[in-house]
This record gives sequence, structure tokens and C-alpha cells, in this order.
Amino acid sequence: MRSMTSPAPATRAYRRLSVEERRTQLLAAALTLFAHRPPEEISLDDVAEAAGVSRPLVYRYFPGGKQQLYEAALRSAADRLELCFAEPKAGPPTERLTRVLDRYLAFVDEHDAGFSALLRGGSVAETSRTTAIVDEVRRAAAEQILVHLGAEGPGPRLHMMVRTWIAAVEAASLIWLDEGKRPAADELREWLVDHLVALLTVTAATDEETAGVVADLLAQETADGPVGTLVSRLGPVVGGAAHLL
Amino acid sequence: MRSMTSPAPATRAYRRLSVEERRTQLLAAALTLFAHRPPEEISLDDVAEAAGVSRPLVYRYFPGGKQQLYEAALRSAADRLELCFAEPKAGPPTERLTRVLDRYLAFVDEHDAGFSALLRGGSVAETSRTTAIVDEVRRAAAEQILVHLGAEGPGPRLHMMVRTWIAAVEAASLIWLDEGKRPAADELREWLVDHLVALLTVTAATDEETAGVVADLLAQETADGPVGTLVSRLGPVVGGAAHLL
Repeated sequence: MRSMTSPAPATRAYRRLSVEERRTQLLAAALTLFAHRPPEEISLDDVAEAAGVSRPLVYRYFPGGKQQLYEAALRSAADRLELCFAEPKAGPPTERLTRVLDRYLAFVDEHDAGFSALLRGGSVAETSRTTAIVDEVRRAAAEQILVHLGAEGPGPRLHMMVRTWIAAVEAASLIWLDEGKRPAADELREWLVDHLVALLTVTAATDEETAGVVADLLAQETADGPVGTLVSRLGPVVGGAAHLL
Repeated sequence: MRSMTSPAPATRAYRRLSVEERRTQLLAAALTLFAHRPPEEISLDDVAEAAGVSRPLVYRYFPGGKQQLYEAALRSAADRLELCFAEPKAGPPTERLTRVLDRYLAFVDEHDAGFSALLRGGSVAETSRTTAIVDEVRRAAAEQILVHLGAEGPGPRLHMMVRTWIAAVEAASLIWLDEGKRPAADELREWLVDHLVALLTVTAATDEETAGVVADLLAQETADGPVGTLVSRLGPVVGGAAHLL
């Protein structure tokens, strides 16, 4: 019998991992669990079992127990999400945004229950530290958008607009998860791009800086890209506004 | 000396209040405190002192202590806020929305620090009960908007749109408080109305139900109302989109 002549593969792997590898493995197991269930439903035993190790070993790496594991998993998820935001400054801006939102929605899809529990509020695992991590991700998202809009030091109105749109994206993501991930992710993404274009346009109506940003943005867009498609669909809608001119 | 011949006015008032009046008075004191400072900074002694009563008396009415008082104060603030949403179904819809948002922003102004602490997340006083109260207010806001849009049983896209805009209003309110209540409330309100009009318009581009709502809405608007003003300002902005047609 194999088990009498040599250790089982799992046991061998258990012994061979370095401290850093073990930590990474525990974190990965925790992140997978916290991604798919609210933190209330996860115990340290679940993490130990998923990682194939003992409970005391988990405590050796995370003496703060479940809360420490949760915050470390959140930190690691936040780092991954921020990587999704990176996009070269080339091509029509709404096409760049399309690619970023596709990656973002794939992340939301992959971390569904954990994403909801974290952002919905009222979770027992929520602390000022978890709130700070979420806020940092929001700040990173706003910075990236402003880079692509060519407005890295924005005035108050443009800055408020971008942060408000990010909150709207979060809210739409939570509703999307509640609705069983309907509509399809690419339909939701298209609507979120249209939302930003619409918000930029009306903000430009009363803010000179945003008007400059919109002029630069429109010059980079194409007739068959997201803005061109939106413009072609708006004809019948705005026809009803003729009496307001 | 007056104090020897008759009780001081405060003491007299103390004795005369009925149970219901006393409860109302304690709640009012708590609400005022919780409106202007985060719950972490308020003690039961502060509430007792503000109401001019003893700490044991506060406990007699609120045996759950500070958390119970906080939740009762939140309940009462939520009821007041929901009253702000009521508006007759008459006149151009964006002018009704203007009046509702003016009342809403006055509420935010009046409850500044408490509003921030509650909605920012990570507060020690946040529980599943406080989250449920906040969600109930959001639902009430969405219902009212849908009534005025003539879409009380909305399809998924229109419903998501309205809920997303409400999240955007909340986010903008928090940023507004962070920025020392700048811009002026009426400028912020005007931008929030424009935001909803913009979001309705682009949603109408891909959703038939919303297209019907927008057609009805535009027919009720006037050239010198919020939509007319926005349309007149959009000319120079959309001029840059000619190559996309």
C-alpha cells in the first residue's frame, strides 16, 4: 500500500512549502471562500479544510484569526482589482473604458457573494480598515479615469462627477448580482459607458473644464465606436425635445 | 429665593412629561447629537445631559443603551426623510424633482456628520438593522421617482437606472459634505436633475420602456424649465460630435 511506503502527495506538499508559499496558499484558499460566501458564513475551520492544513497552522500564520484572514484576502483582492484598471493611453477613450469595465465585471462575477457582502454594509467583518481598503480602490479607479480624460488635477465639479459615476457603477454591480447577473455583462457594460458619456456631456453644459475634456474626447471617438453608436440611437429619443429649443 | 418656594422650571417640566413625551424628548436630543457627530463620539451621558435628565432615566426608556437610542433616532430621521419625498403629481416632472431634491439636500445639510458616518460604512453603530433602515429609505425614494415617471411596475433596466441614480445622489451628497458643502446646494441640485435627465435619455436609447417614459416626460417639460435650460446649454457641447453622425 502506497501510504505505508511513501507519504501521500498532499502530505509531501505540506512539508515542502516555504513560509511565503504557505501564506500565499492559505490566502488563496481564504479568498476563494470569502469570494463566494458572506464572511459570516466562513469559519477558520473552513479555511483550514480548503487549504488541507490544520486549524493551528492557520493560526500560526494568521494569529488574528478569521478577521485577519478576511482583511488579508480583501487586501489581495483589492490589489488584483486595481490591476484591472490599468489600460494603455491609446485608441478612443470609450473603447479603453470598455476593456476596463469588461475586466471589472469579470472580477465582480468571480467574487459575487463577497463583493455584495463587503459593499452592502452591515457586515460583521466590516471595520475602518476594510472601509479604507475599499476607499483606496475607489480612489485608484477615479485616478485612472482622470488620466484617460487628460485631467489629472481636476477641478471640483469634474472630480465629483467621476467619483459619482464610480459609485453608480458599484450600485449597478450590486443590483446586477441581485438580479442573477442579468442583463448579460456586455449589455451592462455598454450601459455604464453610455452613462459616463451622458454624465460628461451634461456636466460639460455647466462646467468649462469638463467642456474641454468632452471636446478632446469626442475628437478621439469614431462613428462605429461606443459614442457613435449612442449618438445614432439618440435621434428618435431627442426628437421629443424639439419644443424645448 | 425662588428655588425654595417653587421648583425650577426645568424640574417642573421633568415631572410633568408623560411617558410618550419623555420618549420623544430623549429621541429628539439623541437625534440632534447623532446628526452632528459620528456615533462613536456620543455617549449616553451626552444624551442625558442634552435632555436635562439623569443617565438612569435614559436607560429606563432605552434599556439597550446607546445602540438602541441610535437606531431609534435613525428610524425617526428615516421617517422624516421619507416625508421629504412626497410631492404632488402636477407640473413638469423635473420641477417636482427640483423641489424634492431641495428638501433632501436641506436634510443632508442638517444631519451632516451623522449622514456621513452612517453612509460611509465601517461605523461601530452599523448593524443589519441600520442597513435595513437605509435600504428602506432607498426603496421609498425609488418608488416615488417611478410614480412621477408613470412607471410604477418598471422593467429591469428602468428600475436599475433609477436605483443607480439614487446611489449617485448619495455619493454626490457625501462628496458635497466632504467639500465643505460646496458647490451651493442649488447648483448641486441642478446638476443632479441634469444627471437624471441624461441617464434617462441614454437608457431610452436601448430600452423601449424608458423611451416611452422619456417621451411622456419631455412632453410635460417647458423651454424655460430644467430640461429646456439643459438643452439650450448642450448646443456647443454636442457640436463636437458632428463627425460621429
